[in-house]
Amino acid sequence: MKIVIIGGVAGGASAAARARRLDEKAEIVVLERGEHPSFANCGLPYYVGGKIQSRDKLLVAPVKMLRDRLRLDVRTRSEAIRIDREAHQVQVRNLDTGQETSESYDKLIIATGASPFRPPIPGVDGSRVLALRDLKDADRMHAMATSGSKRAVILGAGFIGIEIAENLVRRGIAVTILELADQILPPWDREMIGPIDAHMRQQGVDIRLGLSVESFEETPTGLRVQLTSGETLDADFAAVCIGVRPESKLAAEAGIVCGARGGIQTTANMQTNDPDIYAVGDVVEVECFVSKTPVQIPLAGPANRQGRIAADHIYGRNSKYRGTQGTAIVGVFEKTAAMTGLSEKILQRIGTPYEKVYIHPADHAGYYPGAEGMTLKLIFDPSTGKVLGAQGVGSKGVDKRIDIVAMAIQAGMTVDDLEEVELCYAPQYGHAKDPINMAGFVASGVVRGDQPIVHADASLAESQANHFLLDVRSEAEFASGHIPAATNVPLESLRERIAELPRDRRIIAYCKVGQRGYLATRILMQHGFDVANLSGGYTSWLAANPSPTT
Amino acid sequence: MKIVIIGGVAGGASAAARARRLDEKAEIVVLERGEHPSFANCGLPYYVGGKIQSRDKLLVAPVKMLRDRLRLDVRTRSEAIRIDREAHQVQVRNLDTGQETSESYDKLIIATGASPFRPPIPGVDGSRVLALRDLKDADRMHAMATSGSKRAVILGAGFIGIEIAENLVRRGIAVTILELADQILPPWDREMIGPIDAHMRQQGVDIRLGLSVESFEETPTGLRVQLTSGETLDADFAAVCIGVRPESKLAAEAGIVCGARGGIQTTANMQTNDPDIYAVGDVVEVECFVSKTPVQIPLAGPANRQGRIAADHIYGRNSKYRGTQGTAIVGVFEKTAAMTGLSEKILQRIGTPYEKVYIHPADHAGYYPGAEGMTLKLIFDPSTGKVLGAQGVGSKGVDKRIDIVAMAIQAGMTVDDLEEVELCYAPQYGHAKDPINMAGFVASGVVRGDQPIVHADASLAESQANHFLLDVRSEAEFASGHIPAATNVPLESLRERIAELPRDRRIIAYCKVGQRGYLATRILMQHGFDVANLSGGYTSWLAANPSPTT
Ligand SMILES: Cc1cc2nc3c(=O)[nH]c(=O)nc-3n(C[C@H](O)[C@H](O)[C@H](O)COP(=O)(O)OP(=O)(O)OC[C@H]3O[C@@H](n4cnc5c(N)ncnc54)[C@H](O)[C@@H]3O)c2cc1C
Ligand SMILES: Cc1cc2nc3c(=O)[nH]c(=O)nc-3n(C[C@H](O)[C@H](O)[C@H](O)COP(=O)(O)OP(=O)(O)OC[C@H]3O[C@@H](n4cnc5c(N)ncnc54)[C@H](O)[C@@H]3O)c2cc1C
Ligand SMILES: CC(C)(COP(=O)(O)OP(=O)(O)OC[C@H]1O[C@@H](n2cnc3c(N)ncnc32)[C@H](O)[C@@H]1OP(=O)(O)O)[C@@H](O)C(=O)NCCC(=O)NCCS
Ligand SMILES: CC(C)(COP(=O)(O)OP(=O)(O)OC[C@H]1O[C@@H](n2cnc3c(N)ncnc32)[C@H](O)[C@@H]1OP(=O)(O)O)[C@@H](O)C(=O)NCCC(=O)NCCS
Repeated sequence: MKIVIIGGVAGGASAAARARRLDEKAEIVVLERGEHPSFANCGLPYYVGGKIQSRDKLLVAPVKMLRDRLRLDVRTRSEAIRIDREAHQVQVRNLDTGQETSESYDKLIIATGASPFRPPIPGVDGSRVLALRDLKDADRMHAMATSGSKRAVILGAGFIGIEIAENLVRRGIAVTILELADQILPPWDREMIGPIDAHMRQQGVDIRLGLSVESFEETPTGLRVQLTSGETLDADFAAVCIGVRPESKLAAEAGIVCGARGGIQTTANMQTNDPDIYAVGDVVEVECFVSKTPVQIPLAGPANRQGRIAADHIYGRNSKYRGTQGTAIVGVFEKTAAMTGLSEKILQRIGTPYEKVYIHPADHAGYYPGAEGMTLKLIFDPSTGKVLGAQGVGSKGVDKRIDIVAMAIQAGMTVDDLEEVELCYAPQYGHAKDPINMAGFVASGVVRGDQPIVHADASLAESQANHFLLDVRSEAEFASGHIPAATNVPLESLRERIAELPRDRRIIAYCKVGQRGYLATRILMQHGFDVANLSGGYTSWLAANPSPTT
Repeated sequence: MKIVIIGGVAGGASAAARARRLDEKAEIVVLERGEHPSFANCGLPYYVGGKIQSRDKLLVAPVKMLRDRLRLDVRTRSEAIRIDREAHQVQVRNLDTGQETSESYDKLIIATGASPFRPPIPGVDGSRVLALRDLKDADRMHAMATSGSKRAVILGAGFIGIEIAENLVRRGIAVTILELADQILPPWDREMIGPIDAHMRQQGVDIRLGLSVESFEETPTGLRVQLTSGETLDADFAAVCIGVRPESKLAAEAGIVCGARGGIQTTANMQTNDPDIYAVGDVVEVECFVSKTPVQIPLAGPANRQGRIAADHIYGRNSKYRGTQGTAIVGVFEKTAAMTGLSEKILQRIGTPYEKVYIHPADHAGYYPGAEGMTLKLIFDPSTGKVLGAQGVGSKGVDKRIDIVAMAIQAGMTVDDLEEVELCYAPQYGHAKDPINMAGFVASGVVRGDQPIVHADASLAESQANHFLLDVRSEAEFASGHIPAATNVPLESLRERIAELPRDRRIIAYCKVGQRGYLATRILMQHGFDVANLSGGYTSWLAANPSPTT
């Protein structure tokens, strides 16, 4: 068996390693056009920022290790330039010598990844306009960041842009991020990401939303960036991080079928339309685990696992990729945003009905020192309660909660299941009712009709005339800020003052985070009022209405 | 509806709160013999040690809050002394006045918890022999710990004993822990707990295993503790933490059926044999979620959730408790031990077949600074791969991994499912192949026969004459310590030196953690050798053989 693999990093190297374990006798050729296989793409921003000091740390599995341990025939600086499916051959160019040779295969695995998208903007190809995908890119950005640069512009506030921003700030560089969307971290829902946005601004990052670049122009001393808003920014360099595109040209030219967004289409075994050709990693289109629609989600975990699956299938094993559920995380200045499953905006786009709840728990028991707050949003099917997605923002313990929901989604669990899951509890680590149980309680209450809820979005503002806003917090809390037009009746005296409440309008109850609002809702429902709780309370209202007039 | 609840902390207060939310009109009486309802039992050790400074912090829901918000009729210092089922009445003694009254109920919930077991040892009732269950106990221990005590003896190295030890050390007190078992933290398997044991000793805790106390004797200046070993220890005070017993006497006297270990038996709805009487929390016997056998597992999460379920059922809702899976965690001097599901020793006791794997991953990607090691043990059904349990020991990230496995167990997942779960990955938080995926890979390989394994236990030593021990680490690693009688052939040269290996005996390959040993196993299997990998490698061997002769 001779296996040729194009691309020697996450997906390709994993496929090669697994193939070797399954077949000691196979000839396994890994073609990699870069200098190094198996490097840590995900570490590149931190190398730029000096958090990872040694470049060697990024070389997860150097060529020598892959040869010595796995007897992989790794050929770096070797670019596959054509696939001849009929002849079962790949044309390879040696990037040092320019020489072309051809390599035969029994099975071919395409693991070429995805390359940063460069928008067709004048000047985008200039030497001060960088991107960050591989070690070469990292070296350039590292050099720029450590040679006296004072200002940088980052185009795109996705997770790579955000990570670069943090790392340039670490180097003392003033950073402006430009983002066309109306929020940073577009995969997350907008109201969730406010704390990260605010935190980054506090760290001095200049974030500009809703605009983009018209042109880049090199000046004698740096770069002039012309914005769509008319403004100009001067910087030493720019980084373009507005997403990636599957590197599927080679495959497409050979007649391998690709999807609408350019990703190679495969079976669950990672086989393309040519049974002798597999494709894995960022270059493939995958099925969303939750919505079952085709998506491009370029992440390292899926790439690694797909590589392993392809190798399995070559050896007659029916390993299957289950689809990508979009579990993602980003850290910036000690804050964390994580998500799994579908976001609200995706659900709206694909027209799937959903409900959501917000909670604002602490990472661990409040009576034990050091507890820090987070916000969790749980999204679920309003009739069956099936968990569709979750997002978390905070500092400690966010990754854990999103991983737990990721498991729930993998298992097809409902919000009722979350009520009953049994998680680790000691006061340093969690709660007797973990935030996940709590999200389950709240969401189940919503599904069962125990807790009618509304959300702090446009519809709330629109219906203002038709409802009565009831703030059930204490007088002191009310005085320190509240939703306009709200009336304060603290929960503790609600029962006594119930006659003050209107029966001709819906009452929207709210408190700080949703819990007292829920208690008020229960009381009023049982007294025959039409009432709903504002999910996540004033905290969520503030998140959705960043500059309130109180 | 009039509901009387005996016991006003985790299970009882949760039942009361939920009942109020379901029924605004119910009369809800909570009888609590202590000074305060709803306190943080789990925080008591940290109050003793000063980590939690303010005692008020322990009062999670003071009486006033329960009255004002939930209109609960909370009666503290009120002890239920008799249940008259026929008359639907509870006899109550006011502990301040001694007065007895009777309280009628429509539904009764018993949430009396469990009390520390005091072994019948001479002197155990002396004033310097403490236990820790409630605020009164905590006040006494706090007073002892802050009034010049220099030495303390703790009887029992379960999680409460361990937490007290840490907290007394925090107060500068010299601590000796006595444990009858041959390990600390008996719910965990012995080989897992070594790093915690060693770490505690490093912090100065004197741990003595395999012995107990013969008598306590008060001396003019303190306490003399006579050990079963013949030795005597002088201390200022002792704490007895050798487990708890369900406080089911009241129930049993009223004819409520209890199990073999004294716990009240209930349906999944938490209903006892008397349909008007429910029982929840530490006082009940539960079904183990995994083995389906009756167990007593006194933990706060289950108590809280059971309280909620009982209230639901009173109001005609069919909420069900799913059984306790034994998810538990303990932190000590910044180290963590966590577990979920069945331990190996329980599986042996109940005679269920199982297999296990050990891995020693870092909490996050090694190339990102600050990664710290942990050990994970995954226990599964050897034929179906169904996950039966997991244990983790380390510092950061252990709680997360055990929670993830707890979810897998709740969902009935197999090790194949763990291969494919999609968890958060950025280098600060995890790995592209999370330890959970990795444990899934390894365990699936074992189930599928790709990776025959052996363990570093007695059987390995016994079979020594019949196998060839192959150390595939580097020469330098070998030189710095290895398993006696092992032969070193580094993985990198194994293929060339394969002729040196015997074909008449089984080869046991090992490396540092198991991964190179696995690669060696794959190579040798495919060359027709009878070979197995030592799971967890030299690291696990050291854990199982704490004082090796190398
Ligand atoms: C800066 C950065 C940060 C990231 N952070 C995270 C993170 O925190 N978490 C996460 O999950 N993911 C992260 N990712 C994404 C993750 O790195 C990718 O999803 C993953 O590497 C994809 O693996 P792959 O094997 O498909 O492609 P790649 O890892 O990109 O490897 C493809 C390789 O193929 C080579 N190649 C392409 N075409 C050819 C050809 N014709 N001939 C020969 N060789 C070729 C390329 O040189 C490349 O080395 C990050 C990516 C970047 C760039
Ligand atoms: C020091 C300590 C640390 C702990 N740490 C953890 C931890 O980290 N994680 C974890 O999950 N669990 C922990 N636990 C266990 C946890 O606290 C219990 O599982 C939980 O509190 C059980 O709840 P319960 O309602 O059944 O009983 P309890 O919380 O014990 O409440 C029972 C109440 O009933 C009252 N009562 C009893 N009999 C009567 C009567 N006849 N009349 C009136 N009142 C009565 C008692 O005074 C008591 O207040 C810890 C326990 C202790 C003591
Ligand atoms: C380094 C690289 C080549 C390794 O590939 P790999 O060998 O498949 O993966 P790992 O080193 O994680 O090892 C996993 C294998 O070792 C086995 N293993 C791991 N720990 C083990 C242990 N303690 N005992 C026994 N087996 C073990 C696993 O079962 C698995 O083997 P399997 O697939 O046959 O079941 C590849 O992951 C890579 O190139 N990574 C860097 C690039 C990258 O991922 N970038 C994106 C993230 S920054
Ligand atoms: C304090 C105590 C009385 C609270 O009981 P509780 O009200 O049932 O529990 P919580 O305060 O956690 O609130 C949970 C309820 O609020 C709701 N809720 C919580 N956050 C919410 C939010 N943001 N929005 C809407 N509802 C919310 C939940 O849905 C749940 O209601 P439900 O059961 O009707 O679904 C009880 O937990 C207790 O006594 N604890 C201390 C003792 C203890 O547990 N000791 C052991 C551990 S140290």
